[in-house]
Amino acid sequence: MRALEQALREIKPLDEKAMAAARARQDTLTKPLGSLGRLEELSIKLSGISGKPIPRINRTAIVTMAADHGVVAEGVSAYPQAVTPQMVLNFLHGGAGINVLARHVGAKVIVVDMGVSSDIAPHPALLSRKIAYGTSDMARGPAMSREQAIRSIEVGLEIIEKEVKNGLDIVGTGDMGIGNTTPSSAITAVITGEPVAKVTGRGTGLDDRQLAHKVEVIQRALAVNKPNANDAIDVLSKIGGFEIGGICGIIVGAAAHRIPVVIDGFISGAAALIAVGLSPRVKDYLIASHCSVEIGHKAILKYLGLRPILDLELRLGEGTGAALGIFLVEAAAKILAEMATFAEAGVSERDDEEAKPPVKDG
Amino acid sequence: MRALEQALREIKPLDEKAMAAARARQDTLTKPLGSLGRLEELSIKLSGISGKPIPRINRTAIVTMAADHGVVAEGVSAYPQAVTPQMVLNFLHGGAGINVLARHVGAKVIVVDMGVSSDIAPHPALLSRKIAYGTSDMARGPAMSREQAIRSIEVGLEIIEKEVKNGLDIVGTGDMGIGNTTPSSAITAVITGEPVAKVTGRGTGLDDRQLAHKVEVIQRALAVNKPNANDAIDVLSKIGGFEIGGICGIIVGAAAHRIPVVIDGFISGAAALIAVGLSPRVKDYLIASHCSVEIGHKAILKYLGLRPILDLELRLGEGTGAALGIFLVEAAAKILAEMATFAEAGVSERDDEEAKPPVKDG
Repeated sequence: MRALEQALREIKPLDEKAMAAARARQDTLTKPLGSLGRLEELSIKLSGISGKPIPRINRTAIVTMAADHGVVAEGVSAYPQAVTPQMVLNFLHGGAGINVLARHVGAKVIVVDMGVSSDIAPHPALLSRKIAYGTSDMARGPAMSREQAIRSIEVGLEIIEKEVKNGLDIVGTGDMGIGNTTPSSAITAVITGEPVAKVTGRGTGLDDRQLAHKVEVIQRALAVNKPNANDAIDVLSKIGGFEIGGICGIIVGAAAHRIPVVIDGFISGAAALIAVGLSPRVKDYLIASHCSVEIGHKAILKYLGLRPILDLELRLGEGTGAALGIFLVEAAAKILAEMATFAEAGVSERDDEEAKPPVKDG
Repeated sequence: MRALEQALREIKPLDEKAMAAARARQDTLTKPLGSLGRLEELSIKLSGISGKPIPRINRTAIVTMAADHGVVAEGVSAYPQAVTPQMVLNFLHGGAGINVLARHVGAKVIVVDMGVSSDIAPHPALLSRKIAYGTSDMARGPAMSREQAIRSIEVGLEIIEKEVKNGLDIVGTGDMGIGNTTPSSAITAVITGEPVAKVTGRGTGLDDRQLAHKVEVIQRALAVNKPNANDAIDVLSKIGGFEIGGICGIIVGAAAHRIPVVIDGFISGAAALIAVGLSPRVKDYLIASHCSVEIGHKAILKYLGLRPILDLELRLGEGTGAALGIFLVEAAAKILAEMATFAEAGVSERDDEEAKPPVKDG
């Protein structure tokens, strides 16, 4: 708990001075005022997060956390739990979606076993941080102990601490875990206050009957556990997952170390809800990469006040949306750092009013 | 005219067989069916365009075409025409937005003087294809002759032909030209049939009075020239621009050579309207990178039936949106080519029904 408490204490507000400097610089670059829209906004946010007027992004990583879920015993997923470790091996061999996209954007993938239900052979690219062999069935009792919840978060903190020491400038989150839309919907319902049915989707490709059953299982889990929405650790331990705790730790750690954290889709969003529950200041460090097809994700983004960068109708998880999001955040940083100013380029400014760059649309 | 006629004849429908093969392969990759959403759709479109079941993108380029517009004499832009050549120099020196983003995505920038109103000193990165020193004032007569319109298109064809010979796999379009939202709005009104006021924006940062004047100038240009909406060359010559013709040539050439063309914002969109007017088949080869803030762009996308990949509130032009769009198209191609199949990765398929990959959200 001490590491978590310390990290939470370290989270500071955004650096307004750096943001003002970045905003001022944007307005001197050879382009119409504001004409790079959200890229300009992102660059200013990066300045506030990093405290640097011209932030640079050199090292990027996606942390993909895997774990299993006891609640699959209730029949909430059409797929066998064996897929979780199989997909972890796929990550380690470079054949999964996240590997392809991370290579494309030049990000490292850090694969973490947070609690897969079987043993995974050691591999140089795998961090083994297994809290347990999957969570317990949350429909019958708490998914994990309070102590395990804290430990799962502290794994994320530890990973970020080490990576930041090695120069990490931005991190993306990702997940793998058969059944993990179920705890994510449960967390979303509890923290946003939305009805379970409104934040529960077909996740595993469920038909109407199976979806109704999933909703019923989540309602049962909430009735059995009575998670306290004002105690994020209570929510995580009773109806969460080990990978969700781990991602929460990545988010809190990133905020504590003043690096931006690009969150992926629904499962990462649920982890962000827990993180913001621990400290509302975390919100300023979050960048939403995309809007997932999964119905509950919209409720999360609305609750967090985040507007996603991309809308590509993704619903894969693993960090795939985060990888593409990181690339666009890097683009924003480069615009701020590398574009010539009007003075440098010898480009005329506006005839009338005060000097303003030409505004042209394309 | 012969080169243009030949290019138009060479445009074939999409390759349905290659698309079916790509679709079938997507469904064997280690991800939930359809879970990479629009990236999957894009990869299938690439197959149809290229005729290859697994298309690869290695060489990418943005063609940024610059020209001036006689209509600026009517006071439709708050900025001096001198900015056009100044920005061309900025492109050549690598300091503009398009340079930064093209470097970020690994694309070459091809800068073309299609008709800047002053001389630009020779530079190894500049293609000098000046049709004239700017167009004539379209509010008083045709912007250019029919012959100049065809020549401007043929410049685009010639550039694409050479680049494809050198292995170009995808091209993005870009523009620079003070005042060029005015001809673009005029073209959009004529071809989509929307009222001028509905497709004319503040482009150069105009106030209400200036915007009303811009609308009036465009209406005058239409009344004076009476462009024939069913004759795209007539529209281009009477109310177009040299860079718009050049971009139209890039688009037609890309379609003729079966490479995808990622269109940028409003000006590139107007060029696409001309290209589709020349041959409706061109439409299948277009990928819309983003939705511009400029009001007329939405009407263009709707008319062409295109859904943009990004919505970052850009309105810079130059090809900046196209550069980012190309990167996402490359991501789509890599997903199709590089992800492991279920069989290769030894990942279990669905328990029930026919074999289907797990569908999970994230």
